[in-house]
Amino acid sequence: MASKLLVDIHTHVYLPRYASLLRSRTSVPFIRSSTSRDGKLDERLLILDHEPSGGRPVGPQYWDRDEKLQFMDKHGIDVSVVSTANPWLDFLPASQASTLAKELNEDLEQYCSDSPILPNAPIKRLYGFGLLPLVPEITTKSLLDTVEQISKLPHLRGLIIGTQGVGKGLDDEALDPVWTAIEAAGLVVFIHPHYGVDNKAWGDKDNGHVLPLALGFPFETTIATTRLILSGVLDRFPSLRLLLAHSGGALPQLSSRLASCIDHDPVVASRLKHDARYYLGKLYLDAVAYGPEELGFASDVIARSGRYQTGASVTGPAVRSLGSQRMLFGTDHPFFPPLNSTEKWKSVVENLDAIDAVQGWTQTDRDGVRGGNAVALFNLVG
Amino acid sequence: MASKLLVDIHTHVYLPRYASLLRSRTSVPFIRSSTSRDGKLDERLLILDHEPSGGRPVGPQYWDRDEKLQFMDKHGIDVSVVSTANPWLDFLPASQASTLAKELNEDLEQYCSDSPILPNAPIKRLYGFGLLPLVPEITTKSLLDTVEQISKLPHLRGLIIGTQGVGKGLDDEALDPVWTAIEAAGLVVFIHPHYGVDNKAWGDKDNGHVLPLALGFPFETTIATTRLILSGVLDRFPSLRLLLAHSGGALPQLSSRLASCIDHDPVVASRLKHDARYYLGKLYLDAVAYGPEELGFASDVIARSGRYQTGASVTGPAVRSLGSQRMLFGTDHPFFPPLNSTEKWKSVVENLDAIDAVQGWTQTDRDGVRGGNAVALFNLVG
Repeated sequence: MASKLLVDIHTHVYLPRYASLLRSRTSVPFIRSSTSRDGKLDERLLILDHEPSGGRPVGPQYWDRDEKLQFMDKHGIDVSVVSTANPWLDFLPASQASTLAKELNEDLEQYCSDSPILPNAPIKRLYGFGLLPLVPEITTKSLLDTVEQISKLPHLRGLIIGTQGVGKGLDDEALDPVWTAIEAAGLVVFIHPHYGVDNKAWGDKDNGHVLPLALGFPFETTIATTRLILSGVLDRFPSLRLLLAHSGGALPQLSSRLASCIDHDPVVASRLKHDARYYLGKLYLDAVAYGPEELGFASDVIARSGRYQTGASVTGPAVRSLGSQRMLFGTDHPFFPPLNSTEKWKSVVENLDAIDAVQGWTQTDRDGVRGGNAVALFNLVG
Repeated sequence: MASKLLVDIHTHVYLPRYASLLRSRTSVPFIRSSTSRDGKLDERLLILDHEPSGGRPVGPQYWDRDEKLQFMDKHGIDVSVVSTANPWLDFLPASQASTLAKELNEDLEQYCSDSPILPNAPIKRLYGFGLLPLVPEITTKSLLDTVEQISKLPHLRGLIIGTQGVGKGLDDEALDPVWTAIEAAGLVVFIHPHYGVDNKAWGDKDNGHVLPLALGFPFETTIATTRLILSGVLDRFPSLRLLLAHSGGALPQLSSRLASCIDHDPVVASRLKHDARYYLGKLYLDAVAYGPEELGFASDVIARSGRYQTGASVTGPAVRSLGSQRMLFGTDHPFFPPLNSTEKWKSVVENLDAIDAVQGWTQTDRDGVRGGNAVALFNLVG
């Protein structure tokens, strides 16, 4: 039964406590309220610098659990593993981030723990990724305390992080004690973008959110993960379970180029135990890439990783089917809403259709990507 | 016979006139000369801001035609379509750029025109991409004159450009007359990166050139091409033949996400005639991606483009074989030299091996990517 579930592992929330904080602020990130001509409350979310078009409309789909469940029902999603949306606590001073992380983790546990149980399996409908207070000047003790808190909250099965670490990125050795604790606790780390790259890259034309979202977000994930690889984190913490947003961004397509560039720099190459492509097989990727060719290719890149382990004797083509076992369905809800509120969300339908259309995946593989892999990775029982 | 040639379409030169200019300069880009302890001339090329490790050693492989031909012979390359390496003329004032473009185009014509003829085909061993003086304050007339010059030089079959245009990028309407002229002349436009993205993205660690080359370069190509698509250039100039460096960077893997982001922005969507993925089928990609899965995927993305033409009734899986017809072997010579100068260049061998190992390509497809497609695209006769 559990192998046929549809599980959404990329789905966000601004918990009420977090939404209140955003409403209290007047600079990014914040929620700006106004009253429209017909007397209705109009709330706009501004989370990016230079947010185009005055922010995006927000409403209860961002904070109300019933809305999440309704969305899930509408699309046949059995279980969601929910995470706070970007920019998390990145913008807060250390003491406030530390306190709020703990409160929001408790809030999210509550959000999940009294959610309905599936009719046919001993599985709740909601699980969660906790938050760490990853901000400059935070103490390691505060980070470790929060890892411990998350590991003890029964419905939190991982944590979501951005790419800034404690100010110097995820390749900062100051994070080694945190990776140690996360690895020991068996928590899944969901790496998610927020900052993109320098806005100057997008030029003068008004293309709305298209360039920062379509390109900047995946570039950021690609850079952060590559820096993790180059800094040896995946060598030092081989059991760390990292889940990358948006199918790893551009990392799969640039991974052989990356390996070649490393190969031509003996100093960098000497620091790594394996060819860069080996490490992609240690990752988990969401299946939020909107196209079957992208998903199939990402699974190829996972599947081929064995060829690139130092000393490996594996040769021959990648077995795409194997790579599917590290890919997991997601929706990015409540972002990318439909233009007409009564229809099924195109962003969801496209990702489901893409899973169905990947060449070389068996029905078992598709069922895995739709939910079976998530049940296993997050140990979704109880 | 011509269908079995090995043709390198991504291979660079700093012509002697250009190398002299670089030697005369003291800021990036420049060549710094010193005398090593054993009395030998040591020349270092610095072309990137914050160039790590004091620049890269350069020597005759960058400017000497005999070295190019020796490199070709060593690797079985029959024909090369040579281009000036980055940063071209981007750093020069308009008048100097204009004069130098014409001189370098004449130089490159000479470099090609008295190159040997292949023993078994009426084809020279060297052809070239010309240069345009694409710098701020250049006149449109100067650009158009140079397009005309290139189109009349018999061994130049295209032109290489960076991503800056005349200062505002390639999505600048000021370039429309240039696209018109290039399209009419049937010249191939090779779009090549140089600037990457903001260096702050790479963090504090010393990873040599790895991050800007492995990620920054392909990101830049991805951004430039996406901006071209969003600005409607590919709608307005449907016969423009654009060749993207490094297999299109990250564009293939992000193209369905791009399409989804556009789809959720009615203003941007309304400006385009087709789904973003359609335009990828109008492009040519070099096969410089260092891995068979990357090449196969890029060919999938080209092949599927017909599904995304407005009004198309095409469905079903991408026919990878078809996509191979727009992919062309390249080496990136003289960059990525081997660590030991007597060996075959690993960067070359890897790209050839990758072509051989793509699943779903026939021998005819492989022959096409190795050279047949280039013979057709550049009309390599005479």
